[in-house]
Amino acid sequence: MSGISDVARIAGVSKSTASRALTGSGYVSEQTRRRVAEVAASLGYVPSTSAVSLATGRMQSVAVLVPTVARWFFAQVLGGVQSALLERNLDLTLYEAPPGTQERRRILEDFLPRRRFDGLIAVGLEPAEGELEQLQRIGRPVVSVVGATGPSSLVTVDDVHAARRATEHLIALGHRFIVFLGGDTDDHFAHVDRLRLRGYQEAMADAGLAAHIRHVGSGVSIPEGYAAAVDLLGETRARPTALVAACDEVAIGAIIASRRLAIAVPGDLSVVGIDDHEYAEMFSLTTLRQLPREQGRAAVDLLLRTIGDPARAREELLLQARLVVRSSTAPADPAPAIAVSDTHPPR
Amino acid sequence: MSGISDVARIAGVSKSTASRALTGSGYVSEQTRRRVAEVAASLGYVPSTSAVSLATGRMQSVAVLVPTVARWFFAQVLGGVQSALLERNLDLTLYEAPPGTQERRRILEDFLPRRRFDGLIAVGLEPAEGELEQLQRIGRPVVSVVGATGPSSLVTVDDVHAARRATEHLIALGHRFIVFLGGDTDDHFAHVDRLRLRGYQEAMADAGLAAHIRHVGSGVSIPEGYAAAVDLLGETRARPTALVAACDEVAIGAIIASRRLAIAVPGDLSVVGIDDHEYAEMFSLTTLRQLPREQGRAAVDLLLRTIGDPARAREELLLQARLVVRSSTAPADPAPAIAVSDTHPPR
Repeated sequence: MSGISDVARIAGVSKSTASRALTGSGYVSEQTRRRVAEVAASLGYVPSTSAVSLATGRMQSVAVLVPTVARWFFAQVLGGVQSALLERNLDLTLYEAPPGTQERRRILEDFLPRRRFDGLIAVGLEPAEGELEQLQRIGRPVVSVVGATGPSSLVTVDDVHAARRATEHLIALGHRFIVFLGGDTDDHFAHVDRLRLRGYQEAMADAGLAAHIRHVGSGVSIPEGYAAAVDLLGETRARPTALVAACDEVAIGAIIASRRLAIAVPGDLSVVGIDDHEYAEMFSLTTLRQLPREQGRAAVDLLLRTIGDPARAREELLLQARLVVRSSTAPADPAPAIAVSDTHPPR
Repeated sequence: MSGISDVARIAGVSKSTASRALTGSGYVSEQTRRRVAEVAASLGYVPSTSAVSLATGRMQSVAVLVPTVARWFFAQVLGGVQSALLERNLDLTLYEAPPGTQERRRILEDFLPRRRFDGLIAVGLEPAEGELEQLQRIGRPVVSVVGATGPSSLVTVDDVHAARRATEHLIALGHRFIVFLGGDTDDHFAHVDRLRLRGYQEAMADAGLAAHIRHVGSGVSIPEGYAAAVDLLGETRARPTALVAACDEVAIGAIIASRRLAIAVPGDLSVVGIDDHEYAEMFSLTTLRQLPREQGRAAVDLLLRTIGDPARAREELLLQARLVVRSSTAPADPAPAIAVSDTHPPR
């Protein structure tokens, strides 16, 4: 049977590095961690239970709280978490429930306090509802992915910046009638969508387009984006020349709606999303790319380091989304521009 | 603090029925179970740990093995399982890995044999790879959802029948040049897609259209269906008048491809799917409706009954998908029909 020495030798690292890589109990570069994990897997090496317990606590399980697995972003984060946990021989306990539901309250009040896990990854917490504070009281390490900034470590894309970049891209193409589409339904306005709306508003104001700021709410799935876009674009007099969508799903819904209404994208309407969803390529969508799978993996790294060293300082991994230009955006038609004074009050 | 007697009284059932409803340890109608669960939740009643353990084993957790959470069907099944487990105060341990991967082998060989769960729900097992037999050896109750028929209880839609109904719908509309699109990529041909292909082949053969049987393989996501449909429909000479898609995602990909190629659906091409995906309505897709969330809930019921009574006989819940006609299917244009003799050998 192979031991940690064999793994270290073949991977070309020290024994202590190999051990850290396999238990997640200290810093190792992602590249090294992968190489060590591959070597360990190829040799059939399994860290002894006691060594793993030392690093990760006695339950050998990490809990994941997520609003839903039925959306691309959350499914990707969950996939990254699962994959990183498998490499470290840890189980994943799933708690899935949308914000504001009875099921979510039960998870927070009945399930999580049982502490049947060594640490918790909380995806998309809603700070307005004090969820992070509730989780802190449970007494297990918590790492947040998107959402609440607080005493826990956090992995997130810079959402304000991403929406700013999306908006600036359209402004640079000459657009002024730019609507922010998505977020803010009757019963829910997710923290992440608030941040993105703010990035749009800031970019518009900075460009002297405060008078044109306009937010049209909708849920953030493709069908909800589609329905909201049909309403918005069907109204020909007030039609914008460009949309910043709260996420790619809303952007794709808007493109499907445009095709239905015979509005050419990007000829009549430019659309930019945020995500780089698996369907983005198929719809030639210009978007701000984030890598949710990597966010899930990074959250596992951060969590295991915190479990290994509870005195460790809080970390914030603020990632920058990158603009990917495809063909859903194009220069604005200069003809219909209407002079707008900066003295108009923002709505 | 409320007790089981309060729950039973307010729900209008006997104490033993209330107990069965909350622990899943015997038969209770779905309606009763829901009512009891609602009353229990409203009263803040939590079954005592020992009572739950008696019914579900000591880990108080159910494991779910699933190929991916990033597809609609699997995410829905998982949501149903999660929701049913929450009602019964049970944790969900997630094992996600696509067939044929190293990660899946590790789950089957290293993780599941640890038996850190009271029972297992296996979604989309591939019988060809002997996965069910491997799971049986672990020594915990297993319920399958779609996929392998074997010694375990099974919850599934009748996939052969669903594809048959889809094909018969098109034949009744006068179509003869009907292609089955999806399944069978270079490296994977899922069991469920094989069953659906068989249903299509049987319906074609029964209608004397064996010579027209044609299967075009592709992965079963929207982008993969899109890419395969672009290839298939771009070839104008051999273009079919109708498609039976392996699932709604492939059907939706084909509709998006048709719009790109200026092929009218249903004018030039009828498309029928299987699923009733959340996007089906948006694309006016005619499809065979199945309810994966309910399949997940039913699997939990079956599993808990088996845990409560290991001698219990195997059950098979074979559900029938229901045809939902929207506007992606229409009568075939009678003009281009070409006589085909039944003596042509099937391909």
